[in-house]
Amino acid sequence: MKNTFGNNITITLFGESHGPAIGCVLDGIAPGIKVDEDYIDSLMDLRRPKGKISTSRHEADKAKILSGVFNGFTTGTPISIIIANANTHSGDYAGLNVIPRPGHADYTAGLKYHGFQDYRGGGHFSGRITAPIVAAGAIILSALNNKGIYIGTHISSLGDIKDRDFVNYLSDIEGLYDKDFPTLDEETADKMRSCIEAAAAEGDSVGGILKTAVIGVPGGIGEPWFDSVESMLSHALFSIPAVKGVQFGKGFDLANMKGSEANDPYRISGDKVVTATNNNGGINGGISNGMPVEFSTVIKPTPSIYKQQDSVDLDKRSNTKLFIEGRHDPAIIHRARIVVDAMTAITIADLLVTHFGTDYLA
Amino acid sequence: MKNTFGNNITITLFGESHGPAIGCVLDGIAPGIKVDEDYIDSLMDLRRPKGKISTSRHEADKAKILSGVFNGFTTGTPISIIIANANTHSGDYAGLNVIPRPGHADYTAGLKYHGFQDYRGGGHFSGRITAPIVAAGAIILSALNNKGIYIGTHISSLGDIKDRDFVNYLSDIEGLYDKDFPTLDEETADKMRSCIEAAAAEGDSVGGILKTAVIGVPGGIGEPWFDSVESMLSHALFSIPAVKGVQFGKGFDLANMKGSEANDPYRISGDKVVTATNNNGGINGGISNGMPVEFSTVIKPTPSIYKQQDSVDLDKRSNTKLFIEGRHDPAIIHRARIVVDAMTAITIADLLVTHFGTDYLA
Amino acid sequence: MKNTFGNNITITLFGESHGPAIGCVLDGIAPGIKVDEDYIDSLMDLRRPKGKISTSRHEADKAKILSGVFNGFTTGTPISIIIANANTHSGDYAGLNVIPRPGHADYTAGLKYHGFQDYRGGGHFSGRITAPIVAAGAIILSALNNKGIYIGTHISSLGDIKDRDFVNYLSDIEGLYDKDFPTLDEETADKMRSCIEAAAAEGDSVGGILKTAVIGVPGGIGEPWFDSVESMLSHALFSIPAVKGVQFGKGFDLANMKGSEANDPYRISGDKVVTATNNNGGINGGISNGMPVEFSTVIKPTPSIYKQQDSVDLDKRSNTKLFIEGRHDPAIIHRARIVVDAMTAITIADLLVTHFGTDYLA
Amino acid sequence: MKNTFGNNITITLFGESHGPAIGCVLDGIAPGIKVDEDYIDSLMDLRRPKGKISTSRHEADKAKILSGVFNGFTTGTPISIIIANANTHSGDYAGLNVIPRPGHADYTAGLKYHGFQDYRGGGHFSGRITAPIVAAGAIILSALNNKGIYIGTHISSLGDIKDRDFVNYLSDIEGLYDKDFPTLDEETADKMRSCIEAAAAEGDSVGGILKTAVIGVPGGIGEPWFDSVESMLSHALFSIPAVKGVQFGKGFDLANMKGSEANDPYRISGDKVVTATNNNGGINGGISNGMPVEFSTVIKPTPSIYKQQDSVDLDKRSNTKLFIEGRHDPAIIHRARIVVDAMTAITIADLLVTHFGTDYLA
Repeated sequence: MKNTFGNNITITLFGESHGPAIGCVLDGIAPGIKVDEDYIDSLMDLRRPKGKISTSRHEADKAKILSGVFNGFTTGTPISIIIANANTHSGDYAGLNVIPRPGHADYTAGLKYHGFQDYRGGGHFSGRITAPIVAAGAIILSALNNKGIYIGTHISSLGDIKDRDFVNYLSDIEGLYDKDFPTLDEETADKMRSCIEAAAAEGDSVGGILKTAVIGVPGGIGEPWFDSVESMLSHALFSIPAVKGVQFGKGFDLANMKGSEANDPYRISGDKVVTATNNNGGINGGISNGMPVEFSTVIKPTPSIYKQQDSVDLDKRSNTKLFIEGRHDPAIIHRARIVVDAMTAITIADLLVTHFGTDYLA
Repeated sequence: MKNTFGNNITITLFGESHGPAIGCVLDGIAPGIKVDEDYIDSLMDLRRPKGKISTSRHEADKAKILSGVFNGFTTGTPISIIIANANTHSGDYAGLNVIPRPGHADYTAGLKYHGFQDYRGGGHFSGRITAPIVAAGAIILSALNNKGIYIGTHISSLGDIKDRDFVNYLSDIEGLYDKDFPTLDEETADKMRSCIEAAAAEGDSVGGILKTAVIGVPGGIGEPWFDSVESMLSHALFSIPAVKGVQFGKGFDLANMKGSEANDPYRISGDKVVTATNNNGGINGGISNGMPVEFSTVIKPTPSIYKQQDSVDLDKRSNTKLFIEGRHDPAIIHRARIVVDAMTAITIADLLVTHFGTDYLA
Repeated sequence: MKNTFGNNITITLFGESHGPAIGCVLDGIAPGIKVDEDYIDSLMDLRRPKGKISTSRHEADKAKILSGVFNGFTTGTPISIIIANANTHSGDYAGLNVIPRPGHADYTAGLKYHGFQDYRGGGHFSGRITAPIVAAGAIILSALNNKGIYIGTHISSLGDIKDRDFVNYLSDIEGLYDKDFPTLDEETADKMRSCIEAAAAEGDSVGGILKTAVIGVPGGIGEPWFDSVESMLSHALFSIPAVKGVQFGKGFDLANMKGSEANDPYRISGDKVVTATNNNGGINGGISNGMPVEFSTVIKPTPSIYKQQDSVDLDKRSNTKLFIEGRHDPAIIHRARIVVDAMTAITIADLLVTHFGTDYLA
Repeated sequence: MKNTFGNNITITLFGESHGPAIGCVLDGIAPGIKVDEDYIDSLMDLRRPKGKISTSRHEADKAKILSGVFNGFTTGTPISIIIANANTHSGDYAGLNVIPRPGHADYTAGLKYHGFQDYRGGGHFSGRITAPIVAAGAIILSALNNKGIYIGTHISSLGDIKDRDFVNYLSDIEGLYDKDFPTLDEETADKMRSCIEAAAAEGDSVGGILKTAVIGVPGGIGEPWFDSVESMLSHALFSIPAVKGVQFGKGFDLANMKGSEANDPYRISGDKVVTATNNNGGINGGISNGMPVEFSTVIKPTPSIYKQQDSVDLDKRSNTKLFIEGRHDPAIIHRARIVVDAMTAITIADLLVTHFGTDYLA
């Protein structure tokens, strides 16, 4: 299913960066979930470019709901959302189907679509297409919160700068939604912003690592083969542009640990079974164990930079130089985090509904 | 789709470690592909435990094909494969549904299946269930080779020991199929084996990182949202027990690179467009670009160890100590690599057939 | 997949009769297919209510394409289409969630969506939701025509009146697209119209049987289990409101035939293998055999009638009488036929692309 | 998904008539369902050929469960079932890939699989492949019965002979499971048997119409587009060999009814809402309304007959005559009914689990 993801809750994405509108269809949502447009707007705002560390393309990004919501509640039928494209400078992108930008999808889009793709601004591959994901995710996120499930993502590292880890999960997560630049430690944010500004000053860009925690997921969710919690989340996360790695719990650091260190010992805590450590990120055998689901996602540096780069002229079949015009983000990691939250919300909700049935989220 | 993966080529897995048989159904395979049982056996042998660094459970692991192959060729109908379980010591596993092994799926299986799971030897969560994946992958791998597509996986790091990178992809890949312990540098293998033996001597276990290269994949394969090459491969790979992280190209190291370093510049090479570097692992915007598809997979240390561990008694709801009886692998990474190759073959084939149609592999 | 149909070409439907807009996302379409808006309009016009035999609700029904088309050609990315709802008289439908209309989905929608459904005008169950199917089908139908595949549907019976059978398939099919009231015999149309008008005069409604032929489908398409040509088409057709039966070839009449009569004998015709009869409707074992694919679909009489009916008051839990206000169709069969054509086009295209790959229709 | 059906409960079929074994994988079944092998055997027996009205191929048809059942209960993991092929006379089928049998899939299988298909006894298209469906359906049927849902199918017409309709649904359904030849009226059975024997005496075959009732299905199940109860059931039913038509409620007879006759009036009955008639077969807008789900399925006459038929020699590309050797059924309708019951059970269970969650059937 090409542009659709999910088993019982599904999202179907459509749109191009410079077409009339982008949007999505969110299906499988229980009837009776309250839809708060202000809340949707507030999450959309976390994705909005702001200040010197982001692109100067500014869009109202108002999510317009065409169906599936009636009198302020979900109806149970497909929720379609569209977001207008207004502030397009398509002229900036002329020729990118002929001289592809390194690190972007211009070249691969041409291979796949034989030159018929809408190449303006990255077309269907644009990071802009994540806006409808955030709108859809907002509807689900508020429903998950009502079930005691919370999702938060911070920038755990950017360049040499590292943020602290989650400690008090619930308050840490809630605090992140108040921040345009999501770190757990406030001083870290300043250092990271400075790092992005320094790269921007050189016409360059930076990436980083996002760390996400999901609390309140009941144990027993997911499938051994092949729809493990890890498989489903990674499938969703790797669809976000710029994501090149996903790891759960200690992830790649497990390569340097012994079994006796990596295993999370069980113990009784009140009336619950918990683990003393969470090296496995809340998942064993692909199934949630009731501990926080924790994972990291690496965001590569934004490929659009203000430096001359080597590329090719696909018409002339010759090497050439490219300098990309237009408006770029020197970093997108702070904007990407709410996309990760939204994509995670959709995926976790799908796993829950698969297990507990359609009406679970209502 | 719980125990099924793929869009147009699908694999459905079944079986428990101590049941009568395990197996799979491989569907969507073109008619007319030659099926070489010796080749299947040879790949099954790469997964087979051998020597001091593996479990002493020995199974013939002969893949018996029940359908979908006629006169030595695939028919186009579902290929069902079963592998008998013979050497089971089920007594070793009594009680593991009550006192779950840390790092294993015993506890989460109980949550999910409410105590009805076949807990013996890990049941449906056992690494043994990867054997049918290898048999199915072998059929596809030989078909891919006939199309000029080759897949190889080596242990890139284990503890502090690192293997060299792929240099001459084709010969490096071919060489790996001759090795029970897959490293590109022969001396590395000895050091890694020693490291595993040292851990085994302590009753402990180790993990490591596998690196995979796929060459010959045509450009233009995969979908932007949500069935990107990365999404599909990670979905498949995270289903393999012990995998806790997947990264493409430079992966998590991209967090420390600038855009000007991370972007892979295009250049003309003969009649082809190539990239000077391959930091993106042969994938841009989720679509293959014609360069080698490269990714790394972290394998956590085997959770079964010969050391006393903290666990809980789920009946008594109390803390307890656990010493695991039975036969364990102090490392599974060398056996897991052929599972990664097989899972990769199935996934790449699915993406190809989705693009080029059913008969592409014939 | 709730509101999505198809394996490799998919359509996702959204919208409610009295919401701001209805629409669909059509995915999996090859890049490079010419999109002719006039042709889309012409098929939309065949679905439009006209004259005394249809509802007086009139909508412009202009399909607006938001994505997936660039410079007049498909791009290969999802095609999203929206159609505004303008001429809504929502007041006519007040209370239908409390006193459900017999034969409609008012009652079952309430059961499924617990009262949160948008009940105005049938909401998501409205026949109006078929408009985006026609728009999407038009894009595919013109591509199929370019491949020599033609689809046509006529009213084979209405009341006691029967139309003649297809004789010269291609010209018969082409002729149907010139007719608002699709019969092969022109006099039949007049009789059927009179029959509808007579029912309308009594405040009643009629149904009938549609017969469809698809020519040019290559042999060898479809799957034995479970995606047979019959299974896929019936799945799609039974989603159209008012369809209560689907039969292929001689269908239910096969119950009265002997094997020696029902079997279609093979014979050589030029360089082709054909069958002397087509009792099996061009499908054997679920697979197309190269003969015309032929099937019939029964359309039940429109449930909205201008007669008092027995219903219940769901709030008071008591029996009551209902007289439906609003604008009704005394027959929808002549408007439904283009929906059948469109749904058939989408389904056949999906089967073809599954077999021959993404670019087949380009 | 080629040989797989279902959204949350899935069945994957494999096997060829003359291969080593046939079977299926049934996935998505709740843990904790009691599996009674005697009950499975009893349903398998209803499909078994017996007496003069069936083929003389006799198979033990013992369903062997390889996985997913432990200590007599389902585990929640995939249930794999295999059935050995023992009594094969493959010699009878030599050459059927060259001179295809009219009405069979020999010719279309060759088109689809390019001659690589296992053509012996119809291979993967054989009616024999329905045996695993019955075994899988038996597990589900007993779970449905525990939830108060019952499914029964009788031969409603065969030639000119008609059976009575369902009257007392529960006892009528229960009675059918005691009968090898399933009619509601006992005398009807004798007449129908005589009709089959008369056709057999001429070397010919007959078909007929099966009518199925499902009682106890809660209202509110199914999806408006595209997974309506009708769409899902017809998808499943049309995969059964020889099925060429499916209709719900009054089906094709609705073409001759007025809206005022066809609409099912609602009324209160005790604490329930019921309909006075059931012309819509328990389904409105694709959603169950709580009344019995009722549908008819036409079974074409068995294509294997003992009469010379016209066919073609595909090697010589010439017309030829064919006389089919081997063992045939002069009618399969009485054996097909339990396949319809099983397929219906799987489909209804899938719809229920999609709505109510994984554990609903436990």
